[in-house]
Amino acid sequence: MADFSKIKALTFDVDGVMTDGGLLCFDDGNFLRIFDAKDSFGLRMAQMAGIRLAVITGGTSPSITQRFRKCGVLEEDIYLHSRDKIQDFRAFCAKYGLDPSEVAYVGDDLPDVETIRAAGLGVTPSDGVAEAREAADFVSGYPGGKGCIRDLVERILKAQGKWNFNIDAYVNQY
Amino acid sequence: MADFSKIKALTFDVDGVMTDGGLLCFDDGNFLRIFDAKDSFGLRMAQMAGIRLAVITGGTSPSITQRFRKCGVLEEDIYLHSRDKIQDFRAFCAKYGLDPSEVAYVGDDLPDVETIRAAGLGVTPSDGVAEAREAADFVSGYPGGKGCIRDLVERILKAQGKWNFNIDAYVNQY
Amino acid sequence: MADFSKIKALTFDVDGVMTDGGLLCFDDGNFLRIFDAKDSFGLRMAQMAGIRLAVITGGTSPSITQRFRKCGVLEEDIYLHSRDKIQDFRAFCAKYGLDPSEVAYVGDDLPDVETIRAAGLGVTPSDGVAEAREAADFVSGYPGGKGCIRDLVERILKAQGKWNFNIDAYVNQY
Amino acid sequence: MADFSKIKALTFDVDGVMTDGGLLCFDDGNFLRIFDAKDSFGLRMAQMAGIRLAVITGGTSPSITQRFRKCGVLEEDIYLHSRDKIQDFRAFCAKYGLDPSEVAYVGDDLPDVETIRAAGLGVTPSDGVAEAREAADFVSGYPGGKGCIRDLVERILKAQGKWNFNIDAYVNQY
Repeated sequence: MADFSKIKALTFDVDGVMTDGGLLCFDDGNFLRIFDAKDSFGLRMAQMAGIRLAVITGGTSPSITQRFRKCGVLEEDIYLHSRDKIQDFRAFCAKYGLDPSEVAYVGDDLPDVETIRAAGLGVTPSDGVAEAREAADFVSGYPGGKGCIRDLVERILKAQGKWNFNIDAYVNQY
Repeated sequence: MADFSKIKALTFDVDGVMTDGGLLCFDDGNFLRIFDAKDSFGLRMAQMAGIRLAVITGGTSPSITQRFRKCGVLEEDIYLHSRDKIQDFRAFCAKYGLDPSEVAYVGDDLPDVETIRAAGLGVTPSDGVAEAREAADFVSGYPGGKGCIRDLVERILKAQGKWNFNIDAYVNQY
Repeated sequence: MADFSKIKALTFDVDGVMTDGGLLCFDDGNFLRIFDAKDSFGLRMAQMAGIRLAVITGGTSPSITQRFRKCGVLEEDIYLHSRDKIQDFRAFCAKYGLDPSEVAYVGDDLPDVETIRAAGLGVTPSDGVAEAREAADFVSGYPGGKGCIRDLVERILKAQGKWNFNIDAYVNQY
Repeated sequence: MADFSKIKALTFDVDGVMTDGGLLCFDDGNFLRIFDAKDSFGLRMAQMAGIRLAVITGGTSPSITQRFRKCGVLEEDIYLHSRDKIQDFRAFCAKYGLDPSEVAYVGDDLPDVETIRAAGLGVTPSDGVAEAREAADFVSGYPGGKGCIRDLVERILKAQGKWNFNIDAYVNQY
C-alpha cells in the first residue's frame, strides 16, 4: 500500500511527468517544454511545507533549471543529463541523510523503473509505460504534465496534515 | 443559485482560466501562454456591452498585458504579480464604486478560493480544483482556456438582454 | 441538404477553423498559431483540382499569409483584418465572377454567421458556436484545426470526381 | 498478418506520425513541431538494438534533422523535401542491401499509401487517413505524435527478443 505519511522528500523526472512528453524542437537542436501551473504550484506548496525536492532528468535545457528553481527546487538538486537515475537518486538521499524509504520518486518510462522500485514511494502518471505502472506503489489518476504531481503533493501533504494554502507558494512560481 | 443578471463587472485569474494551465518555458525564465480566440472574443463582447473587466493574476509577463488590453481590459485594471487576490479584487471594486455582489470572479486554484467566495458570482472552470468548485456559485461546463470565459460572458449578457453580435468586438481582439 | 458538387470556390476563417482557436501570445503583442498538416494538404489538393481559395480573417499576422500561400491561396485572396466578412466574401465572388451559390464558406463564431448563411455551402466545425451550427448547411464531424477543412475538401472533390492524389500538392505545402 | 520479427529497418514520415500534425508557423514561413519523448526514446532503443532508421518527409526544416540525429538516424538517411516517397524508400533499401520485405514504413496520409503498400510492414497511426489504414498491415492503437512509433518499436524488438532497456538510448535523445 502506498504510504504518503512517511515522505520527507519528492524526486521526479521531467518529460512525461512534469510535461505530457512534448518537446518543441528548434532549428539549433534545443527544445522547450510546456509545464502546468497547477503542478508547479503543487511543488511550491510541498517545498514550503518542508518537503525536499529534486529533479532527476536526462534533459539538459537551461529552461528546466529556470522552471524548477521557481518551483522551489535548489539548483544543486536539479540533476540534468542524468545517465544513471538511481545513482543520482542515491546521491541526493545521502546528501541530506534521507533513507530511500522516506523519499518519493515519480517517473514514466524505462529509465525510471529501477528508481521507482528503490524509492519508498514509487509513483507513475496514468500514462506511464506498462513497466513503470507495474513497478509503482502508486499510479496517479492524472497524466504527466496535467495533474500527476499536484495529485501526489496533495496526498503527501494531506497525509501529514500540511495541506494549507500558502500565498507565497503561489506568487513565487512565476 | 447563480444570478447572472446583476453582474456589472467581470474579474478573472489567467492561468487555468484563460489558459489550460500550460506555461511554455524559455531559457531565460520567461514563459508564454496559449489563449483562446473564442474566449478572447467573449471578453471583448462583454466590455463593449458595458461590463467592466479586470485581470488578477500572480503572473508577470508583458504578454499578459498585451493580450488583455486587446480584449478590452484597461491596463490599469490588469493586476500582475498579485500577492493577495482578495485585496486586489476589493481595490478594483472600490475604484469603480462597485459592490462585490455585482462583480463576478473566475478562478481555478487555491489562491482564488477566498475571492470566489467574496464575489457576487464566484465561478470556476470545469477543471478547477475541488476547493474552487466547492466555493463557486457556478461551475462552468467548459475547462480553462477552452470556453469557460466565453460560456460565462454569454450567460451574463443573455441574462441582461445584451447578447448581440458587435463586429468591433471581433476585430479589436487581434 | 448540403450539395458539394456545385462548389467552385472555398473560403474560410482562420482561428477556430484552421486552428483549434489557440493563440500563442508574445510579449510584443504578436501571436502565432498551430496549423494542421492534413488540413493544409487538403487545401493544396483543392487548389490543384481547380477549386479557388480565399482566407477571410480578422487576424493580421504575417504568419497567416505565409502559411496559406503555401497551401495554394493567392496572396491577393487572403483578406486580413477583415472588419466585415460578408463584404469581403462578396468582393471575392465578384472578382472571379462566382455566384455565392457556388462558393463554400467555413466559419466557427458569431462574425461568421452572416457569411455562412450567404454562401452556397455554409460550413462549421464540430466545435463551432451554436449560432454557427444552426446557420450551417453542413456541420463537419471534425473540430477546427483538426480535420474540419480536410473533411470538407474530400467531400467536395469526391462529389466532383476529383479526389486523386497529387504529389505536388503534398510537397508544396512545406 | 503483421510480422514484426522479420523487420531489419524502420522508415517513417514525420508530420502526423512523429507529431500530431501540428505546425507552429512563424512570420518568416518556417515552422516548428512538437515531438514526443517516449516516441523519441523508442527510436533510440531501436537503433541501438541494430534496427536501421530512415526519415522520409516532404518537410524541410533543419529542426527535423536536429531531432532525428539525436534519435539515432544518420543524417544521410534523413530524406527531406521528398517528392516521391517510394523512390526514396527504394533508394534507402538499395543502399543497405535491404529487401523491402524486411523494412517497415509508417505513414499517415495519401503521399504515404504507395510506400505503406511496398514495405514489408506497412503501418499507420490510429488517426491515419482511411486510405492509409486500408493499405496498412498494422494500424497502431496510438495516434501520431503520441505513442504510435513507440508502440511499433516495442512490437518489433519484443518479437526479436531485443526489448531490453539501454541507458545510452535514453540519454542520447537529448
